[in-house]
Amino acid sequence: MFHLLDLIGTMAFAMSGALTAMHKKLDPFGVFIIAFVTAVGGGTLRDVLIGRTPVGWMLDLQYVYVIILGFVLAILFRKKFDKLRTSLFLFDTIGLGVFTLIGLEKGIMIGLHPVICIALGTMTACFGGVTRDILCTEIPTIFRREIYATICIFGGIVFFVLKKLNLENDILYLVTSIVIITVRLMAVKFKWYLPAFEHKVK
Amino acid sequence: MFHLLDLIGTMAFAMSGALTAMHKKLDPFGVFIIAFVTAVGGGTLRDVLIGRTPVGWMLDLQYVYVIILGFVLAILFRKKFDKLRTSLFLFDTIGLGVFTLIGLEKGIMIGLHPVICIALGTMTACFGGVTRDILCTEIPTIFRREIYATICIFGGIVFFVLKKLNLENDILYLVTSIVIITVRLMAVKFKWYLPAFEHKVK
Amino acid sequence: MFHLLDLIGTMAFAMSGALTAMHKKLDPFGVFIIAFVTAVGGGTLRDVLIGRTPVGWMLDLQYVYVIILGFVLAILFRKKFDKLRTSLFLFDTIGLGVFTLIGLEKGIMIGLHPVICIALGTMTACFGGVTRDILCTEIPTIFRREIYATICIFGGIVFFVLKKLNLENDILYLVTSIVIITVRLMAVKFKWYLPAFEHKVK
Repeated sequence: MFHLLDLIGTMAFAMSGALTAMHKKLDPFGVFIIAFVTAVGGGTLRDVLIGRTPVGWMLDLQYVYVIILGFVLAILFRKKFDKLRTSLFLFDTIGLGVFTLIGLEKGIMIGLHPVICIALGTMTACFGGVTRDILCTEIPTIFRREIYATICIFGGIVFFVLKKLNLENDILYLVTSIVIITVRLMAVKFKWYLPAFEHKVK
Repeated sequence: MFHLLDLIGTMAFAMSGALTAMHKKLDPFGVFIIAFVTAVGGGTLRDVLIGRTPVGWMLDLQYVYVIILGFVLAILFRKKFDKLRTSLFLFDTIGLGVFTLIGLEKGIMIGLHPVICIALGTMTACFGGVTRDILCTEIPTIFRREIYATICIFGGIVFFVLKKLNLENDILYLVTSIVIITVRLMAVKFKWYLPAFEHKVK
Repeated sequence: MFHLLDLIGTMAFAMSGALTAMHKKLDPFGVFIIAFVTAVGGGTLRDVLIGRTPVGWMLDLQYVYVIILGFVLAILFRKKFDKLRTSLFLFDTIGLGVFTLIGLEKGIMIGLHPVICIALGTMTACFGGVTRDILCTEIPTIFRREIYATICIFGGIVFFVLKKLNLENDILYLVTSIVIITVRLMAVKFKWYLPAFEHKVK
């Protein structure tokens, strides 16, 4: 079940990458690469930083296939994108929840401090999108708009608070993902965002 | 012989990096760094992702010396660049073929799936140029123009098809490099390219 | 003492990152991330390239706390920044010296060639700033202005020359840092810089 959600999230991230890249008028190879790094970029950075190599997607081809599928779907349905926006947003939000949990898990597995685990969770969920934006030479969206990463951090804190209560692992995972997904849906619905600094350096 | 071609390719990549950086009016240090990452960026990313550390160029100073040589040559001959364009293009194409093969080889050595090996070969050949463009804040050329990476992928497929036929290793390497180099020369001569997406996201 | 200087340098780098990010009107999360990567980016790249994982800051929370402190200070005092410019510049210069030494040290510890150790020192001191500029989509400052990285390379050479003379380790470190810090102060005071290339590629 969890693995299935992981694959759905990966596909959603790949599609979001492909759509951004098509918008930038890249060629098909460029679109594929952006789809790929958006989908696996976060997990790859995490694996490299904790020394878990070869990195995840090299050992499990399912990710590669799911990304190819997302890439093809994004190309085929690019003109119907408006109608699909809601589904894509939902998938992306699932990805956000699942990826954060996977990052937390890897950190705990090698005995890192909760603060670092939360950083790993946030990185797993957000860095793919950051790489996508850098490759398209834009200042990463998550640094400017939307509470996105902040939700991952919040989810990570909820996770460790619940863990202290000795909840069973399954429930712990379920509750944390629901919290992340719910907050994200509410954040978008009610347009919550962090104010930018007005500060001007002279 | 193969090692010599590797060094020639490295030097060509360093020169292409140096020329791009001079065009952007960077200072000598900036030019050197861009030359360096263009030359070793692909192999470095590959080594980091498969956990082969310290990465290649740290253990073999020949690469560093060849890059310094390429950097100096690029500065000295920068005004005669037009006349050298053809040689540089040839060297760069040799680099493309050799780097792809080296990437394939490293993947096979640690038992990764052919699909991943092809990704590693393409990464080795192309990522240096991607980093060069990002450091100069341009959308990477290979995402927009030229069939470049696509040729590496094609070369990788040829490699594994021939491998199935139990060809001797030397011949396998020779044929694959010739295929990559020939296709690249033809692609440039006949202006083959992948069409960009016309799609506009509203 | 050395560790204290390291923490001071880390905080100064975090503050410089935060100030750049606020100038770009990022939201608080974006500002924090830029502060973080500016502070630890160089050491992280170094650790990843030499295979020292999990990377440094994951194993020592002091860095994280010091960065948070720098981030908070940068926000609180952002309007008094002009008065603090000198102190910040001094701290940043301390960071430059200390980070270069730490990079050199890690390279020596795993038996790398002096040329590579100098590269690691320079990387440790400079790559955080490079990442900061890339995330803000600017061509890295150190490629265009100021002798910054060049001073790290110079400091590295001084280090290995003195090492040949069999100086005691403490004195070696002290002299090298003083050299780096002094040259940097003089470089800024007397406006030393490397000339950019006027070259135009046609």
